[in-house]
Amino acid sequence: MAATRAVVALRYENDTLRAIDQTELPWREVELELGTAQDVAAAIRRLAIRGAPLIGVAAAYGVALELARDPSSETLDRAAQLLREARPTAVNLSYAVDRVARAAQAAGAANPDRHAAALAEARAIEAEEQAASDAIAAHGADLLAGARRILTHCNTGALAAPGRGTALAVIAELADRGSLECVLATESRPLLQGARLTAYELAKLGIPHELIVDSAAAGLIAAGAVDAVIVGCDRVAANGDVANKVGTYGHALAARAAGIPFVVAGPTSTIDPGTPTGADIAIEERAPDEVRSAGGRRLTLDSTPCRNPAFDLTPAALVTALVTERGVVRAPNAESLAPLGPR
Amino acid sequence: MAATRAVVALRYENDTLRAIDQTELPWREVELELGTAQDVAAAIRRLAIRGAPLIGVAAAYGVALELARDPSSETLDRAAQLLREARPTAVNLSYAVDRVARAAQAAGAANPDRHAAALAEARAIEAEEQAASDAIAAHGADLLAGARRILTHCNTGALAAPGRGTALAVIAELADRGSLECVLATESRPLLQGARLTAYELAKLGIPHELIVDSAAAGLIAAGAVDAVIVGCDRVAANGDVANKVGTYGHALAARAAGIPFVVAGPTSTIDPGTPTGADIAIEERAPDEVRSAGGRRLTLDSTPCRNPAFDLTPAALVTALVTERGVVRAPNAESLAPLGPR
Repeated sequence: MAATRAVVALRYENDTLRAIDQTELPWREVELELGTAQDVAAAIRRLAIRGAPLIGVAAAYGVALELARDPSSETLDRAAQLLREARPTAVNLSYAVDRVARAAQAAGAANPDRHAAALAEARAIEAEEQAASDAIAAHGADLLAGARRILTHCNTGALAAPGRGTALAVIAELADRGSLECVLATESRPLLQGARLTAYELAKLGIPHELIVDSAAAGLIAAGAVDAVIVGCDRVAANGDVANKVGTYGHALAARAAGIPFVVAGPTSTIDPGTPTGADIAIEERAPDEVRSAGGRRLTLDSTPCRNPAFDLTPAALVTALVTERGVVRAPNAESLAPLGPR
Repeated sequence: MAATRAVVALRYENDTLRAIDQTELPWREVELELGTAQDVAAAIRRLAIRGAPLIGVAAAYGVALELARDPSSETLDRAAQLLREARPTAVNLSYAVDRVARAAQAAGAANPDRHAAALAEARAIEAEEQAASDAIAAHGADLLAGARRILTHCNTGALAAPGRGTALAVIAELADRGSLECVLATESRPLLQGARLTAYELAKLGIPHELIVDSAAAGLIAAGAVDAVIVGCDRVAANGDVANKVGTYGHALAARAAGIPFVVAGPTSTIDPGTPTGADIAIEERAPDEVRSAGGRRLTLDSTPCRNPAFDLTPAALVTALVTERGVVRAPNAESLAPLGPR
């Protein structure tokens, strides 16, 4: 597979973690040089590095960075703690940090063993994520082989996850296979990951695309401008309900009303058997200032009260298929996929 | 009825049309003093005066302004032509201008008869629109008497129409009657009429409200945070399909999925018997720069291709009721309204 990638978001070289500063995109391509766990935690906190899987890998390298300077258990514990707390809600973060910390502990306290073990574990996590991305891309592209015009939401590409990402990896793979005509990318208010990051990645990949306001998706789907919708997922409950970036549920309703597939892509690690249904997922409410502003510009009065749910829930009944690295889970009502891909 | 009004958008006094400059809201309350038809046309063109019914009344006064200075037929024709072309798509504009021009012609060419006749006709149009707004408010509030938490889209208040507006007039009336708990107002990208104007009007009226990004509406409706959705309309086809600000259709889908009423408010003049169905309504595509920016700030690269449909179509089957100045048209499937208001 010629895995075309828009951008390499992270690179660990000579005990430095080089990361694209995503807060500067799409205007400037600035590479950060991160030398300590503190540097990495700060970059994660200010969203210079974002996307749950990417954050996990960055934090894993952050532990390794710190052990290159001082292999003591004290340093290991402090670095792990700092990185785990950089974004409290990202599950991948503590998972990755814990894995690297365990590997380092197992290697004993002697430098360079400890640093080498931590670095090897971080590289392993990154490689696993990249392999998962490639597998998701292949399974998703098989599924959506007949879809020429695809709508996607938020950013799920190489800036959100190692490799090519999740939903955007499927889109990139369809483009590599030559069957893609156009991508409709939603801007994804309030933080505009679609306008800033997805449009940037699609341009880098040379994939024809059009940016739309989030509100335009339903009408364009109803007007027949879209063959399929594919999105990522932040968490999938045991019953198949999907928590994802706010706005996802509306796209799912529009896809169902128009009779086109609504496909969710994500690694199996986002499926949470401990959460029975979507109703058990708490929806994070973020700061009202995100709604009051766009791109740093105030849009309304400072006194305007706002509500800012960051995610919404899409019931499993609206999900045509879930694409994971291990394969595709089709909904019982997935007949609408028949004309699109081989079964 | 104590018709609380957020703001008086237009006032004709001493042969001057005073208008709130809506491009300065919500930050500054600037009153324009318009002395000529050219002034009025320019204010309409640059969206300082907006909202189809408000534009119509402003243009009607624009003709009167011009005749105060020169009652000749040449001036009348030139002013009428200029004002008709200020925004080619607004039907109210040519309707109002034609009515005033006919009244002036009938009065003969002698000043002050001509100016007086034009002014009287402009005042009549404004009074009719205000009466329609009050009637819509009353009918809509009767219908939604049981709804305490209402979601609305775009701006449909005193800044969009003479009087209190349409959908927002219903909301203001419910607040006057004391039954309203909270309004969820969508920001309404790309031009942010919700964030800039509706939030401003609701604050002026002292109505509790929360601003949300457009994408958050569907999830909040599904989560039970909303009792009813009410929106305005740009055009209603003969079969009841509704063309309105982009995003309306998605809110209608979410309301139907949650089993809450989706109500459309507008004067009967927006019902177009000459348009059989929504499919016969051409959807205006506006400039891509509206999507690339928010509040004057660039959000994406200048080279990013965009699609910018300004409206969408909501099929009649999703509309629970249409509230006009003459009364309420209920859909055959309007059972969901039963618990909300008297029939």
